[in-house]
Amino acid sequence: MTYQHILDACGLSAAETTGGTLSVTTPVDGSEIARVPMHSVADAEAAIARGVDAFDAWRKVPAPRRGALVRLLGDELRREKANLGRLVSLECGKIYQEGLGEVQEMIDICDFAVGLSRQLYGLTIASERPGHSMRETWHPLGVCGIITAFNFPAAPWCWNAALALVCGDPVIAKPSEKTPLTQLAIQKICDRAMAAFGDDAPEGLIQTLIGERDLGAALTASRDVALVSATGSVPMGKAVTADMAKRLGKTILELGGNNAMIVAPSADLEMAVRAIVFSAVGTAGQRCTSLRRLIVHEDIYDDLIPRLVKVYEGLSIGSPLEDGTLVGPLIDADAMTAMNTALEQAKAEGGTVHGGGRALAEQYPDAAYVSPAIAEMPEQSAIVHTETFAPILYVMKYTELDAAIAMQNAVPQGLSSCIFSTDVRETEHFLSAQGSDCGIANVNIGPSGAEIGGAFGGEKETGGGRESGSDAWRAYMRRQTSTVNYSRALPLAQGISFEI
Amino acid sequence: MTYQHILDACGLSAAETTGGTLSVTTPVDGSEIARVPMHSVADAEAAIARGVDAFDAWRKVPAPRRGALVRLLGDELRREKANLGRLVSLECGKIYQEGLGEVQEMIDICDFAVGLSRQLYGLTIASERPGHSMRETWHPLGVCGIITAFNFPAAPWCWNAALALVCGDPVIAKPSEKTPLTQLAIQKICDRAMAAFGDDAPEGLIQTLIGERDLGAALTASRDVALVSATGSVPMGKAVTADMAKRLGKTILELGGNNAMIVAPSADLEMAVRAIVFSAVGTAGQRCTSLRRLIVHEDIYDDLIPRLVKVYEGLSIGSPLEDGTLVGPLIDADAMTAMNTALEQAKAEGGTVHGGGRALAEQYPDAAYVSPAIAEMPEQSAIVHTETFAPILYVMKYTELDAAIAMQNAVPQGLSSCIFSTDVRETEHFLSAQGSDCGIANVNIGPSGAEIGGAFGGEKETGGGRESGSDAWRAYMRRQTSTVNYSRALPLAQGISFEI
Amino acid sequence: MTYQHILDACGLSAAETTGGTLSVTTPVDGSEIARVPMHSVADAEAAIARGVDAFDAWRKVPAPRRGALVRLLGDELRREKANLGRLVSLECGKIYQEGLGEVQEMIDICDFAVGLSRQLYGLTIASERPGHSMRETWHPLGVCGIITAFNFPAAPWCWNAALALVCGDPVIAKPSEKTPLTQLAIQKICDRAMAAFGDDAPEGLIQTLIGERDLGAALTASRDVALVSATGSVPMGKAVTADMAKRLGKTILELGGNNAMIVAPSADLEMAVRAIVFSAVGTAGQRCTSLRRLIVHEDIYDDLIPRLVKVYEGLSIGSPLEDGTLVGPLIDADAMTAMNTALEQAKAEGGTVHGGGRALAEQYPDAAYVSPAIAEMPEQSAIVHTETFAPILYVMKYTELDAAIAMQNAVPQGLSSCIFSTDVRETEHFLSAQGSDCGIANVNIGPSGAEIGGAFGGEKETGGGRESGSDAWRAYMRRQTSTVNYSRALPLAQGISFEI
Amino acid sequence: MTYQHILDACGLSAAETTGGTLSVTTPVDGSEIARVPMHSVADAEAAIARGVDAFDAWRKVPAPRRGALVRLLGDELRREKANLGRLVSLECGKIYQEGLGEVQEMIDICDFAVGLSRQLYGLTIASERPGHSMRETWHPLGVCGIITAFNFPAAPWCWNAALALVCGDPVIAKPSEKTPLTQLAIQKICDRAMAAFGDDAPEGLIQTLIGERDLGAALTASRDVALVSATGSVPMGKAVTADMAKRLGKTILELGGNNAMIVAPSADLEMAVRAIVFSAVGTAGQRCTSLRRLIVHEDIYDDLIPRLVKVYEGLSIGSPLEDGTLVGPLIDADAMTAMNTALEQAKAEGGTVHGGGRALAEQYPDAAYVSPAIAEMPEQSAIVHTETFAPILYVMKYTELDAAIAMQNAVPQGLSSCIFSTDVRETEHFLSAQGSDCGIANVNIGPSGAEIGGAFGGEKETGGGRESGSDAWRAYMRRQTSTVNYSRALPLAQGISFEI
Repeated sequence: MTYQHILDACGLSAAETTGGTLSVTTPVDGSEIARVPMHSVADAEAAIARGVDAFDAWRKVPAPRRGALVRLLGDELRREKANLGRLVSLECGKIYQEGLGEVQEMIDICDFAVGLSRQLYGLTIASERPGHSMRETWHPLGVCGIITAFNFPAAPWCWNAALALVCGDPVIAKPSEKTPLTQLAIQKICDRAMAAFGDDAPEGLIQTLIGERDLGAALTASRDVALVSATGSVPMGKAVTADMAKRLGKTILELGGNNAMIVAPSADLEMAVRAIVFSAVGTAGQRCTSLRRLIVHEDIYDDLIPRLVKVYEGLSIGSPLEDGTLVGPLIDADAMTAMNTALEQAKAEGGTVHGGGRALAEQYPDAAYVSPAIAEMPEQSAIVHTETFAPILYVMKYTELDAAIAMQNAVPQGLSSCIFSTDVRETEHFLSAQGSDCGIANVNIGPSGAEIGGAFGGEKETGGGRESGSDAWRAYMRRQTSTVNYSRALPLAQGISFEI
Repeated sequence: MTYQHILDACGLSAAETTGGTLSVTTPVDGSEIARVPMHSVADAEAAIARGVDAFDAWRKVPAPRRGALVRLLGDELRREKANLGRLVSLECGKIYQEGLGEVQEMIDICDFAVGLSRQLYGLTIASERPGHSMRETWHPLGVCGIITAFNFPAAPWCWNAALALVCGDPVIAKPSEKTPLTQLAIQKICDRAMAAFGDDAPEGLIQTLIGERDLGAALTASRDVALVSATGSVPMGKAVTADMAKRLGKTILELGGNNAMIVAPSADLEMAVRAIVFSAVGTAGQRCTSLRRLIVHEDIYDDLIPRLVKVYEGLSIGSPLEDGTLVGPLIDADAMTAMNTALEQAKAEGGTVHGGGRALAEQYPDAAYVSPAIAEMPEQSAIVHTETFAPILYVMKYTELDAAIAMQNAVPQGLSSCIFSTDVRETEHFLSAQGSDCGIANVNIGPSGAEIGGAFGGEKETGGGRESGSDAWRAYMRRQTSTVNYSRALPLAQGISFEI
Repeated sequence: MTYQHILDACGLSAAETTGGTLSVTTPVDGSEIARVPMHSVADAEAAIARGVDAFDAWRKVPAPRRGALVRLLGDELRREKANLGRLVSLECGKIYQEGLGEVQEMIDICDFAVGLSRQLYGLTIASERPGHSMRETWHPLGVCGIITAFNFPAAPWCWNAALALVCGDPVIAKPSEKTPLTQLAIQKICDRAMAAFGDDAPEGLIQTLIGERDLGAALTASRDVALVSATGSVPMGKAVTADMAKRLGKTILELGGNNAMIVAPSADLEMAVRAIVFSAVGTAGQRCTSLRRLIVHEDIYDDLIPRLVKVYEGLSIGSPLEDGTLVGPLIDADAMTAMNTALEQAKAEGGTVHGGGRALAEQYPDAAYVSPAIAEMPEQSAIVHTETFAPILYVMKYTELDAAIAMQNAVPQGLSSCIFSTDVRETEHFLSAQGSDCGIANVNIGPSGAEIGGAFGGEKETGGGRESGSDAWRAYMRRQTSTVNYSRALPLAQGISFEI
Repeated sequence: MTYQHILDACGLSAAETTGGTLSVTTPVDGSEIARVPMHSVADAEAAIARGVDAFDAWRKVPAPRRGALVRLLGDELRREKANLGRLVSLECGKIYQEGLGEVQEMIDICDFAVGLSRQLYGLTIASERPGHSMRETWHPLGVCGIITAFNFPAAPWCWNAALALVCGDPVIAKPSEKTPLTQLAIQKICDRAMAAFGDDAPEGLIQTLIGERDLGAALTASRDVALVSATGSVPMGKAVTADMAKRLGKTILELGGNNAMIVAPSADLEMAVRAIVFSAVGTAGQRCTSLRRLIVHEDIYDDLIPRLVKVYEGLSIGSPLEDGTLVGPLIDADAMTAMNTALEQAKAEGGTVHGGGRALAEQYPDAAYVSPAIAEMPEQSAIVHTETFAPILYVMKYTELDAAIAMQNAVPQGLSSCIFSTDVRETEHFLSAQGSDCGIANVNIGPSGAEIGGAFGGEKETGGGRESGSDAWRAYMRRQTSTVNYSRALPLAQGISFEI
């Protein structure tokens, strides 16, 4: 299947993929696969204006009916799973299996959102005043901007959009300028779903903006964008927050992670090895939930690390589109440089590095394939506190569990974490108030690969946002507390007396 | 009862109330009632450090045991209700009845928080993988800074503190520099409760910082303050948010309101008049939930407004400590100036003003008593969009309900709102997605005087925070999503295949 | 379309519909449309045994995967909506529009259940003991027997089954012996969904028992049937409860209703008339939620009742399969007799009857078509307290709302109720603790036609069960409260000291 | 302190404790401590009638105000803790520490209920129809009968009553005829709380009926008793259910338990021994949650059992009122006989019995002191399936965990269960859908001694009721699903078309 076939299968037309000013290269071999027209800030403002009109109509559509649109969207995604999964793989370089996984997450969240569309539960509440009823209701919020990153060009948009749509909010996507094609393909899928849905879906309900940072800035600047949900780096997140602070707008932030696994003496090492490898080298270490730090009990260190090193040596690196590949390329040469720099620093800080370095340079001179690296560190030094978006796994020893947890919590990010242990005293302690300080804390599975049923997101510099399952939907709505006095008296709360 | 008696009754010692650099004057007559020592930024940093240590201990104390401290605090507040209520009245100028109301709210939230201490519910969630269990847990967050405003020197601290304490968080209060005494008195009550509670309450669990803006800035600047809950003006809120954005810290913002009432033709005007007067002139119009805008159906306008004007003319203005007074003084001369300026602008914009102007100038030459004002406006002009912290009620006419709602929603703030109507079609429409855009929307009661059982807070420039009842407690905790794999297999979510 | 075509379209084979001992006649014209083989008690016991085996497998299938089966079931139902809707109409005599409505409800509950399959939320709970974590989890319950009634041969099965299936429970249907064909057709749809789903669906997961009361008795008698959900009459419900009491088994009861509407002076009479007619004569008055009592304010009585009588006179009575028909036949001659008897008693108790009597006798000599009746009663006499499953509407006057509510609450059943009023004081009072005592209480809509998002069921002799939306799913699971001690100490709750 | 002093301290007057027909003997020494007047069935009916009147008033009192009464009740209980705890010990024979524990539970549930009084949350729900709002509300239910057992004469009443009272329901207690004094003392405490509360507490809100089974029957027979909550034996529970089935009344059943502990090879045996002993001999084995079965892995059996036998031999048996006693008397001679009979049967079924037999016969010739017994059984034979209310611990071996779980689940009751293991794979499996089938399942703590924050109750023949924490309060309310149409159209659910 040629690259063009992959684009064609997603229905991307020549008008959309040629003649534009944004060059899209595939990390598979570094070749240009499209030149996409870019939107201007004026386009963004027009899109926001259409979104505002769409909101006025969409909020009036009953939520279960809104859910019907999301159901159709899920059905379209089921049909297009292979095509879209392949495009994800081509455009961002993750292996096809993971591309399919992204689409499956989109499908799952659609199913979940359909169920929500008959819930969106608020509360009725006991009132202290006779003849009064009190309730809390969740109402549609407004236009939602969704800024996503290159490493997950599909699923995070859908986590946000599926919920926002049932909640009554129009959505405007701003994908990474490195991966616009996937979003264009998704927009087509949405357009089909909306056509099948009929007139209740107003124009401007689901939109896509292709381009660079100025478009994101247009979203954060506009009072007409009620919520900006942004996935990306910590500096990006701080910039978005600072912008939104000026107008007290709402945000959902999904920023970096510096995720660790603690491996305790009682761990099933066979399982731990599998979990480590998938979470450290999957997506070539470019997941926000990628495993970056391994904190191993001293008693098993000499057993575990050599096994790991051995597995790393045997990992199949290659085109993500080919069966059997486990490690695809980094997104671009800058990422490779950053990885090399980090490994150099690791060595300078006393680390011993296994693996690392460019791979397949002859076969793919314009791509950024690397060998995943393991860096044994004498302590959790400066470089270990830094998130490098590449397959580097820093390894440290520990003696006491509380010290290991302190090490796990010592970084500024707070996204994901896990422990491998079969001792319930250790595992529950890790999950307790005195354990991991991350938004995600797992036992006997790696830090990546969350199910959509749970709330996804992290603490501290990860930004505090939550997406996907549980009650993450609330972020896309506004809360209203109401008291109805149906009596003929007017008692004041707290028993205050005020007689005019 | 002399002012000194009021201070003495609250146990405030000479060391605390004399010899300091912060002059505290009572709005009752403008006299100085204390000179309070101020804390430095270094003091604030030391307090934060103590708070961090306290957090380490307090988060380990089981929540129901933490609730036991809050129960003791509630009991102390019951005992001190009259004393503390009187001090509130003296220091911020609200009438004694409202001072008592503040303390009652403190008591109510303590009762509520005690109940929560055996809840703090997270979720168990169905997992898609065999042999996996998923759950969501809420854990203590860290040190909470609580910045409060002069107009509610007591209750908002307690809304925050009672919840934060059961949630496992130490609290550091930074009251308004205009009303430090109330917080000092509260600190004493807390100290007694902690003494009764015993050793489980660590040093530094409940602290107070007296001083100016630099202390608030110390709280927002420190990474060791996990949450800053701030009540005050919109500009203050934007400043806090911008500071916190630099470190991606959490905030709860309770900022301004520009609250309206719509009076429909079917309204019970007798009740409406009572509600209007209490919510417009209570606390001399200095509540964030004070009624500032009245949107009256044209058919009843000529019936309602003259009745209102008449009631206004008869309102008893005077010392808030005296029985029978309904309108106390403004907080200071600046507030009186701001009121006069606003009324001038209202006239310039075509308004007709009833009332307004200084009152009791001879009796209280150094205080800021005013006559509450009603300003009939030809339309919702510029001044009406501005929150002036004074008893000014702007009055406008409407013809169609949807136009009235649009008028209600046209201001930048989104705190509180209400409709007086007996028509369920109107009242439910007002509470619907197409109705009020405020965090609080009431029917047949005024916009002020919320019960503690509901979540309190507002949308748009009001800042989006929620305090008090419902699940506002979650803001004082961190959410953790956990998956425990208790099987011997390692399936990946979304059915991804990755075989090493 | 012949009757045979309708059966054929649902895939019912000759083996299933001929040669059996159970004669199925259509109420459309009283002709026999099938002779269905009946199951024996031994068959029922074998089905239960298969169900127990199926439970052992199904409870191990993760809930979201179980949801995938229900999704497929929903898709099949979408495809078969017209066919199944027509069969419902043919077999139980409700008009085709209502037949379609039943299938739509099945589809809706499937969508809802799919969403639930990633929720099934329990709680994590704050523990009073250090080093302890507490949670509440919902687990699959076991085999569920579902006994349904002739008037809703399709939807109630699915309310139960869709939830039971995602909750991990096999289901065994026992439809009314008057309407077995619909259930047989549903079973076919389920079989197709299970085939599409694959091996995870164990044999015996969804089963149907065709026959009489002895089969229901087999379900209630068996300790292997964890839950019996029964829809039907009050005497049936009491019998089921008494049987289940012997083994302390769980039940969901959806029994009779004697549903009223209060029409207040402020009501929109145009809307009220439409609501009254649909809810009183829809399904020929054979819904459990049919409107049976109309309590009208004296001031509008003389306006409303003549309008109603007039509309009744113009209702199109006829074959439910024909477009334009609004009133189809009663289920059988017994039902017609019961109606006549009730009307006679109504007259004897002082009532004035409009309408009533057999209709279309010449055209359909073997069917039970009747003219819907309105009985103006001098008071709420004995017959009005009785549920007669026929289109009789008893009409009474009231003066004070509280007296009307008392009248509404005076019957032994507590299913559904409503008020037509535009006065929010009346409507909220009706919905308050002092208002309707029914499980369903509506404002400005009739008592019938619930959405699937709310919990469906009633109080008092209606049996107290809840099905469909909200958290009705819990009835199909067992609740488990767990405390995990992960410390090395063993503190007792309530601070008890017990030192061995 | 003489027995009379204990009665006096609780304020029981001579009129209440002498001259009656019900002889109350203390199990401490078998002496008569009171002759209490008994109520007749006519008295019960009068009490119910008063309860009905009280309900009419109490349901109108806002829930937070109802909570204020429960707060006062909790305060009274705090004051009377020692006195009431001693009376519990005297009357039912449990050691004083456990008597105090019962009162502490009463206090805890009062605190919890006060918090609930501002919650009693229902839901607002997304409606499928435009211009419609849907909600679910919980309303007061009616008079609640509370039938309790001799072994917990105090706490279960309060679990029920504290919740029922905030839920808006009057309560009528029917304590065991063996332990009426504790309830009489509680009634006095309630009377004081009601007096402090003032006029809002109607006459008949909290009542006590002293006597035998006929009084319980009067409660189950009356349609005016909306809910009967009954704690006791399985046969009692079946009788109550059968009675209630006749009128489809609501029940909460807390019946027998046959609770097991599984001890896995990885268990901390030191902790296990302490847990076993407290839960098997606490309250002399007369808790519904007493440990009755010990299922021990074969690898540790020979380590654990001798240690246990040794601890049993050293247990201090004696007057429950004396410090240091761990095992008090059985309730009466019948209980001792039942214990002996069971041990004989155990031997006949191949068991080896350690301990057992009468103790302190000379010192207390009229009391029923026994030595706790351990019966090592070759398999889980017939007697092990039977709940004998005495300190008998049956011990069995297991090899595979799933077999141990099957053994645990093989009894007809389903109240409480636990595992001692430090292996998270085992502990989570035990808590999963494939684990314990009990309402309570613990890890590393015994089966008894639940915290009030969780829902308390069990499955299968334990009756399925839930009391105390979580949302057990819902059983004391009725659920109402409401849809308000505030539009001017009348759309039908499921898109049904019906045009008159």
